[in-house]
Amino acid sequence: MTSSSESRPSLGIAETRSVELCRDGLALDSGIKFGPITVAYQTYGTLTPNRDNAILVCHALSGGAHAAGYLAGQKKPGWWDVMIGPGKAFDTNRYFIISSNVLGSCYGSTGPASIDPASGRPYGSHFPVVTVRDMVNVQRHLLDHLQIPSLLMATGGSMGGMQALQWAVSYPERVRSVIAIATTHRHSPQQIAFNEVARQAIMADPEWKDGDYYDGDGPRLGLGVARMVGHVTYLSDAGMERKFGRRLKGRERYGYQFKALDFEVQGYLQHQGESFVDRYDANSLLFLTTALDYFDLSNGCNSLSEAFSGVKSIFMLIAFSSDWLYPPYQLKEVAQAIRRSGGDATYCEINSDYGHDAFLLEHRQQDPLVKSFLERAAHETRGFALTPGNWEL
Amino acid sequence: MTSSSESRPSLGIAETRSVELCRDGLALDSGIKFGPITVAYQTYGTLTPNRDNAILVCHALSGGAHAAGYLAGQKKPGWWDVMIGPGKAFDTNRYFIISSNVLGSCYGSTGPASIDPASGRPYGSHFPVVTVRDMVNVQRHLLDHLQIPSLLMATGGSMGGMQALQWAVSYPERVRSVIAIATTHRHSPQQIAFNEVARQAIMADPEWKDGDYYDGDGPRLGLGVARMVGHVTYLSDAGMERKFGRRLKGRERYGYQFKALDFEVQGYLQHQGESFVDRYDANSLLFLTTALDYFDLSNGCNSLSEAFSGVKSIFMLIAFSSDWLYPPYQLKEVAQAIRRSGGDATYCEINSDYGHDAFLLEHRQQDPLVKSFLERAAHETRGFALTPGNWEL
Repeated sequence: MTSSSESRPSLGIAETRSVELCRDGLALDSGIKFGPITVAYQTYGTLTPNRDNAILVCHALSGGAHAAGYLAGQKKPGWWDVMIGPGKAFDTNRYFIISSNVLGSCYGSTGPASIDPASGRPYGSHFPVVTVRDMVNVQRHLLDHLQIPSLLMATGGSMGGMQALQWAVSYPERVRSVIAIATTHRHSPQQIAFNEVARQAIMADPEWKDGDYYDGDGPRLGLGVARMVGHVTYLSDAGMERKFGRRLKGRERYGYQFKALDFEVQGYLQHQGESFVDRYDANSLLFLTTALDYFDLSNGCNSLSEAFSGVKSIFMLIAFSSDWLYPPYQLKEVAQAIRRSGGDATYCEINSDYGHDAFLLEHRQQDPLVKSFLERAAHETRGFALTPGNWEL
Repeated sequence: MTSSSESRPSLGIAETRSVELCRDGLALDSGIKFGPITVAYQTYGTLTPNRDNAILVCHALSGGAHAAGYLAGQKKPGWWDVMIGPGKAFDTNRYFIISSNVLGSCYGSTGPASIDPASGRPYGSHFPVVTVRDMVNVQRHLLDHLQIPSLLMATGGSMGGMQALQWAVSYPERVRSVIAIATTHRHSPQQIAFNEVARQAIMADPEWKDGDYYDGDGPRLGLGVARMVGHVTYLSDAGMERKFGRRLKGRERYGYQFKALDFEVQGYLQHQGESFVDRYDANSLLFLTTALDYFDLSNGCNSLSEAFSGVKSIFMLIAFSSDWLYPPYQLKEVAQAIRRSGGDATYCEINSDYGHDAFLLEHRQQDPLVKSFLERAAHETRGFALTPGNWEL
């Protein structure tokens, strides 16, 4: 179990399935009734006969349903492959893991690049504004489809952590535990500001065409800049110093050329921007960052602890010391609010110089926390799953 | 002296002068010989008969020679008006203050928007890469022109602080003291990365035209995005929370509209981007951020303390607790290196939630530090100014 992820058994081939849900329309937070909604999802492991070992893994901004294993013919594992698999933190020998692509994304679920049945053309600017709660409501429909009465756990990092927290608040009867990682109960103005810069970079690109660019190249340069902004915020000062320092790229002295690409870190960022453009839809970045900014668990309540007053889950909140995009104080506030509401919250701060990206990388430090908390959830919340009326199959 | 800056006497009308220097060309760090160089500058106060009360104030990325007072017909005071004036930290009743626009900028000194005498058209992409040392060398020529043998002090914040440090290293005989504020001896990869994002935003704009855009509108949208990136890094998390929180702009509930401008912080950033475009040249941002990234006082030395081994100035280094763009640890390292080299360095960390912008705003906390250090410099380094051969008038 302590060997490196590379040598640990993988799930092998993962398969993405797809289902059409909400044919009568889902009532979105914006007031719009929207449907049908296609949901792309993957599952790993086996559901127990009494259906009590399901874990919903929620992805972050640029993720998708492909959380673990390998897609046929592809070399890149899922985004949380270090955490999901036989013997791993989310042990597929014991648990049934569900991972679905969120509403508004571009990896198989309905999003702005999907065909609007009303027009026969991509939604583009006609896609409705969606929220984290809308995403969770779609996931609830997926659970209904899969006939899962309640989740043993909802979990995820960053935007995925917001979904996990929203699960506990929206569906207290259907989620027994939550591990929310590197996230917050609401975006600070600084977090909104970084998203705003990314959106402005996309919208400044003339190829964006107000969001209706699907018959052209799309805002490739703007999306690249947006991704670069994001990437700087995902790393830490100390991590970048370790990874790049002031090392030059392919030369020994400063080049002093206009547009010179002298520093390694410049090349890294440009590569991140360019490679993202081939795998992501700019409108999805606009809509999902908007969802992040609107997210506020305390919205409509007098306090955050009031928002948690009806929850039944037990919580683990995991923050990383060098994550300055989602600084630890935010999850500490969440833990305090949960406890103030009478709930059960464990707060963990992992020492790491990986910054926000740590939730994807620090599996050795996360593994024991996740495993022990899953044990606790399985034992201490057992009655919960069997509550009659909890959910009718 | 403790009254607010608004009620304190101002310099009144400031005047920008201009001089053509380096007619035979200045040897730049890049190896290019470049000239003539026009320098726009302002002076405040009166030079003593023995010319020993001159202070060079160095501006940051978007600043210019207009550091204090008001330009005729304009309502906005100079960028450091809170610090420079009668009775202020840099007391114009006692000191002779010089402020010049740096090489590469767009406020009167030679920069990429200036006319290249060789072609009769703006330099644009043909402007040479300049460094902080090049800027300081031009300032040295300005001092020669003004017949100032040595500076009582070189000072400035951010890029201005780099120039002040470079002065001590480049011209140890001509600068008696340095106050470097909210700055560093070299950019970390994170600092390079934020600059790179800003540059990429400009270069992604098709109106940039590889830098030769002066017969068109120029990269207005790209420059706006670049400025927004900058602005987020100039503020602090806590400061933004205090200033904006999650307050909505002109509405009570979320609008859930595509491209919605719901949060105040979004409007603020967009305004910062748009207003900058009317007052700044995009190529200057490219060239000056490049100069920032190349800046490394220890370049060519075995250590930073070796770089300071020949300096004669006394130093004060002022950092701000919430400045995460130029975090305090960087100036702490500078102070340690100066002391290790046998020099005299005072390190001060001011508690503030203004982030990097604090050097422009926290005058009440800076005033006593600057005043007392100027007294020390005037008394303890008096012999210095009179050293024969120091500089021949």
